[in-house]
Amino acid sequence: MACNHTIHKHAHHFGWDNSIDPVLSVSPGQTIEVETIDASGGQLNPRSTVDNLIGLSFDQVNPVTGPIFIEGAEPGDAVAITFLDFKPSGWGWTANIPGFGLLADQFADPALHIWKYDPVAMKPALYGPGGQVPLKPFVGTIGLALAEPGAHSVVPPRRVGGNLDIRDNAVGTTLYLPVEVAGGLLSLGDTHAAQGDGEICGTAIESPMDVAIKVDLLKGTNYAFPRFETQGPVTHHFDSKGYWATTGIGEDLMQASRDAVSAMVDLVSTETGMTALDAYMLCSVCGDLRISEIVDMPNWTVSFYFPKVALA
Amino acid sequence: MACNHTIHKHAHHFGWDNSIDPVLSVSPGQTIEVETIDASGGQLNPRSTVDNLIGLSFDQVNPVTGPIFIEGAEPGDAVAITFLDFKPSGWGWTANIPGFGLLADQFADPALHIWKYDPVAMKPALYGPGGQVPLKPFVGTIGLALAEPGAHSVVPPRRVGGNLDIRDNAVGTTLYLPVEVAGGLLSLGDTHAAQGDGEICGTAIESPMDVAIKVDLLKGTNYAFPRFETQGPVTHHFDSKGYWATTGIGEDLMQASRDAVSAMVDLVSTETGMTALDAYMLCSVCGDLRISEIVDMPNWTVSFYFPKVALA
Repeated sequence: MACNHTIHKHAHHFGWDNSIDPVLSVSPGQTIEVETIDASGGQLNPRSTVDNLIGLSFDQVNPVTGPIFIEGAEPGDAVAITFLDFKPSGWGWTANIPGFGLLADQFADPALHIWKYDPVAMKPALYGPGGQVPLKPFVGTIGLALAEPGAHSVVPPRRVGGNLDIRDNAVGTTLYLPVEVAGGLLSLGDTHAAQGDGEICGTAIESPMDVAIKVDLLKGTNYAFPRFETQGPVTHHFDSKGYWATTGIGEDLMQASRDAVSAMVDLVSTETGMTALDAYMLCSVCGDLRISEIVDMPNWTVSFYFPKVALA
Repeated sequence: MACNHTIHKHAHHFGWDNSIDPVLSVSPGQTIEVETIDASGGQLNPRSTVDNLIGLSFDQVNPVTGPIFIEGAEPGDAVAITFLDFKPSGWGWTANIPGFGLLADQFADPALHIWKYDPVAMKPALYGPGGQVPLKPFVGTIGLALAEPGAHSVVPPRRVGGNLDIRDNAVGTTLYLPVEVAGGLLSLGDTHAAQGDGEICGTAIESPMDVAIKVDLLKGTNYAFPRFETQGPVTHHFDSKGYWATTGIGEDLMQASRDAVSAMVDLVSTETGMTALDAYMLCSVCGDLRISEIVDMPNWTVSFYFPKVALA
């Protein structure tokens, strides 16, 4: 689509810092086409192997394109970003990075899966024998600059957004981010072709894309955290054949989440014949972590939903 | 439907205790129609007011019908329960019970909403001005006896099930519960006409129903926790018009959940003109708590999804 502005991917930065000069200034209501680099910062490509993963330099991960200065944005406002269109690249990667992920203690070995998919037809992407994953492109990292000076890691999300990894930041959704500095200073990257709620192994289908957005401004909202609005269903790509679900029950939501996911890795591995590590990575790109109840003291129920449509 | 057995609702008990005598013994493969009493144990009815809620005796809450002895069930097995049919009663209640619920500190006052719905047409149930809730009947409490002797509170769910409050234990779903004692000793109750993931105020649309189930037995599964399988989509009743979603972000999943829900109560209250307390109870019966990411150290993203279809 034709946008008011284009930002090329060379205009990127690492981490968040409100002293980084804007690469573009826009008025509320304008549209921008944003090129992105994948979350490896270009260190992985469609021919990469696990050796390339082992050699990954973490100084270069998760580049974000920007920042964009939004005219009139002041602390206490919200920047509204509507996702208009994605141009997927047709390839992506999913990795188990040692030390990272919900079950890092169980899966110590590095692993890399390279995905190929048709960027026009966008049919489910094949995952070796036994798996296929419906695609729904979205932006994993999108945020504003923090008021606090200095450099901040890109890894954790914060109240200004960042590495939110909300898989519904997809076409049609409007995301609202709280502004902490003049102009907001919006940057985005880390595009994903698919992910389940939780991103449990720590990576999605990491896939570079161009993203078209519209930027608006809401004055004086004083939101504590990001919020968003979708225009329609959010799980139709996953739900047609129903789900398997495993649970974890206990006093700690983190442990309950780990128990639910561990059981699902066993289940998917048993049903498909995949290794547990392959099943773990498949669960990350299509399985959903939901809190079934958070009120029946002192035990909470967490459920992990795996879509049966993802079985080839 | 015609079942092999019927259990009337007078055959109920309070709490879990493996010394309670079974009211019925069944073979795997048999079907049972189970009458239930609502979670107030019959203390509330369609004419109740908040004064009746204040006088509630907690000794009589959450009765479960049973127990049912499943022939051949031994510790290490799993009892499989398939939900075949629900006969809803046409009324229900949702309450804010002081001291109970995710935001109990913010909502100290008791409140009671009585629902009326058409048990045949099952159209969305009206919630005063501004709200209407699509219905999906399910069983809130379903479990087996614990191996540990003595009486155990019905409130928390455990690895043998119990007060799971998984809103997808609905028609077509098969639930698998780990067996700890000979015969399993299955009981169920606490039927709900609708609930969102989380049951955030502590109650759903609490509504007595008759439930038809089929019971099967899997030998030697050694499941750590319950699991279940659905035959199709789980959120179609909520998702046609999309969602508003609010987030909480931080190092603690419980606090992030509280932040996400607090923001949604504000949003629903602002958009509809409801009191915050009314919005909180509406959120409990239709809003979903999801873990968007649980890997971007040290901050996790929890999102609370409110279906726009629930706005009248």
